[in-house]
Amino acid sequence: MSLIVQKYGGTSVGTPERIQNVARRLLATQAEGHQVIGVVSAMSGVTNTLVTLATDVSGDTTPPEREMDVLLATGEQQTIALTSMAINGMGGKARSLTGAQAGITTDGVHTKARIENISPKAIHELLDSGHIVIIAGFQGIDRDGHITTLGRGGSDLSAIAIAAAVKADLCQILTDVDGVYTCDPRVVPNAQKIETIAYEEMLELASSGTKVMQNRAVEFANKFDVNFEVRSSLNDNPGTLVTQENSSMESVVIRGVSLERDQAKVTIENVPDKPGAASRVFSAIAEAQLNIDMIVQNVSKTGLADISFTLHRDDLGKARDAVAHVIESLGGETRFTPQDGIAKLSVVGIGMRSHSGVAAQMFDALASADINIQMISTSEIKISVTVDGADIERAAQIVHAAFKLHMI
Amino acid sequence: MSLIVQKYGGTSVGTPERIQNVARRLLATQAEGHQVIGVVSAMSGVTNTLVTLATDVSGDTTPPEREMDVLLATGEQQTIALTSMAINGMGGKARSLTGAQAGITTDGVHTKARIENISPKAIHELLDSGHIVIIAGFQGIDRDGHITTLGRGGSDLSAIAIAAAVKADLCQILTDVDGVYTCDPRVVPNAQKIETIAYEEMLELASSGTKVMQNRAVEFANKFDVNFEVRSSLNDNPGTLVTQENSSMESVVIRGVSLERDQAKVTIENVPDKPGAASRVFSAIAEAQLNIDMIVQNVSKTGLADISFTLHRDDLGKARDAVAHVIESLGGETRFTPQDGIAKLSVVGIGMRSHSGVAAQMFDALASADINIQMISTSEIKISVTVDGADIERAAQIVHAAFKLHMI
Repeated sequence: MSLIVQKYGGTSVGTPERIQNVARRLLATQAEGHQVIGVVSAMSGVTNTLVTLATDVSGDTTPPEREMDVLLATGEQQTIALTSMAINGMGGKARSLTGAQAGITTDGVHTKARIENISPKAIHELLDSGHIVIIAGFQGIDRDGHITTLGRGGSDLSAIAIAAAVKADLCQILTDVDGVYTCDPRVVPNAQKIETIAYEEMLELASSGTKVMQNRAVEFANKFDVNFEVRSSLNDNPGTLVTQENSSMESVVIRGVSLERDQAKVTIENVPDKPGAASRVFSAIAEAQLNIDMIVQNVSKTGLADISFTLHRDDLGKARDAVAHVIESLGGETRFTPQDGIAKLSVVGIGMRSHSGVAAQMFDALASADINIQMISTSEIKISVTVDGADIERAAQIVHAAFKLHMI
Repeated sequence: MSLIVQKYGGTSVGTPERIQNVARRLLATQAEGHQVIGVVSAMSGVTNTLVTLATDVSGDTTPPEREMDVLLATGEQQTIALTSMAINGMGGKARSLTGAQAGITTDGVHTKARIENISPKAIHELLDSGHIVIIAGFQGIDRDGHITTLGRGGSDLSAIAIAAAVKADLCQILTDVDGVYTCDPRVVPNAQKIETIAYEEMLELASSGTKVMQNRAVEFANKFDVNFEVRSSLNDNPGTLVTQENSSMESVVIRGVSLERDQAKVTIENVPDKPGAASRVFSAIAEAQLNIDMIVQNVSKTGLADISFTLHRDDLGKARDAVAHVIESLGGETRFTPQDGIAKLSVVGIGMRSHSGVAAQMFDALASADINIQMISTSEIKISVTVDGADIERAAQIVHAAFKLHMI
């Protein structure tokens, strides 16, 4: 007998029928002889409704984060009760636990709390008496008894933390995709589902557009060595196992290709090449809470630098506002030059550490298809380039084929 | 400075605008120099939606009561957060507390738990630091950490229990009526709002049709000597103060007239007059969980008794089914005779203890109006009669006038 944690997201529990489907799956897993813990999110739509109510009652004021947590935590609390009822309705034995009841203690940072500890005693007692245990994801309680929530992707985080605390044999993240693919199958029809992927590869793919899970949850799994499987809640196909890097992974040079659309590039031209100039630009960007990505700087012989970075096109206006006073203070030569309509293509793989020539192979493939590369940035296991937005799908197909990812 | 508990029901918090109205009222009370606790119900409609979801996921099974409590408790938890946000949005300082956080411990009887204890420490600390404290009504937590709910009228009960625990100077039950009236103003247009009423009178009025609050809450207030005021959440009119009986109350013979429509009378005719016969009839009724009211028995010279009782007309069929086997076992003479279309009129007043002739005065008034009295039952402070349903409004008007209740 092994102990399995299954996490179901908001879409998977979005209607009474879907909750019943989740109940059936949990029961089927138990019937195979396992102890089963279900971690569930709020029914899809519930959180948005609650946020709207919060806005409506608050006038022009931002709702206090402590109260936001009290409000939002009700979403998951409803789902745990309903899921337990559905299991009961099918003749099974289930018990719901809120974050607090499950012993999930966090720090006191409301709306983005960090899990500090999980005492699995109550969970084990219920499992040992034959219950399926249904735990509210996304929420916990701090040392002073305040309700906290974990922020975006919090339910995945809950599931992985619970799996670590109860020493589960497997943690399954049930979602609306079948697993992690070598590329988006809507772009590359012969993209393959990846059987096994390393935490780091998953992190790099996520940060370059393949959003299956939030990175926080993957990082947590990596830290506490929790193997988890991403699979579909709608069928019984095996999914993708996310685990520690192992030597066999190195034989695959590239694990996957990911693409990010709707990007823009900003170039701050003619920045005086002296200490602190770049720092002032990026401090202003950070203060405006803008996510920027690839950063490239070139210094010309004139002693003026061009600093470029990419960001989502919707953030262009905010970026312009954020750096306006910095540019002014840097003198008349400095200019803000935006370029819209670009996209980002990344290849990710632990294997590239031990295989040289990956970048060359990628650039060659793009060049042979007459696709112009604008910016390049690399990490140890990732190479990203920007291309014209109109070329991105073709670029993905060509690179996918060049690394023979349809044949894994 | 005094400490005031204000309870707002589901209709009073039914929309974001109404929650803002509640926030304004709580702030205004604090601005008058008081410490303020708000006890709130779920937004009207929310509980019904949750019950429907519970039914939908449960198939043909009744949802487990423990999980029902987990589900329903989210309704009040949402309201406390939203009310606190609304106060915050108006520049005030508020803090929400769930039943568990407010230290409301109950027994473990899910869906109709009894409050065992309230530890007011957290509440006092928040009040002392200038917060308006918003507490979820209707819910608590048992000794094992399970979420419990208090059943119908539970939020009133919470408010009164909290008022007792924090030794509040006043508990206000804010509702959609202006207070308790000498009779339903839709029936008797010159009915008067009662300034002060004794707990016992309130209980008798409630049990005879004037449903302002559940009796459990009134009984609790009586037991713990909590004065409370029933008043409107929609205006600033003074309401009705419910308090211990005092000597000045005796000068008013009748406090109010209440009426109950849609009643039916059942007569079990020719019951053998021997020990246990009546008991078997009423045991069968109790097993079917039917609420019956006035009970009258007459024994004729033949040694056969007629037993009559009243109940809601909708329960007539269930009553017939419930007693069918008892009637059969009592022999061929015994018959079930229903009479539909009757109504009940009651007069209530502590003063009738020390004033004789109240019954005579009531019967005279009805006789003078040619209204036939069918059944009579009396308690120490109440006289109830049944009349033809078509006569009930006229009967109420005549009795109201006979006791000069329009002139209090």
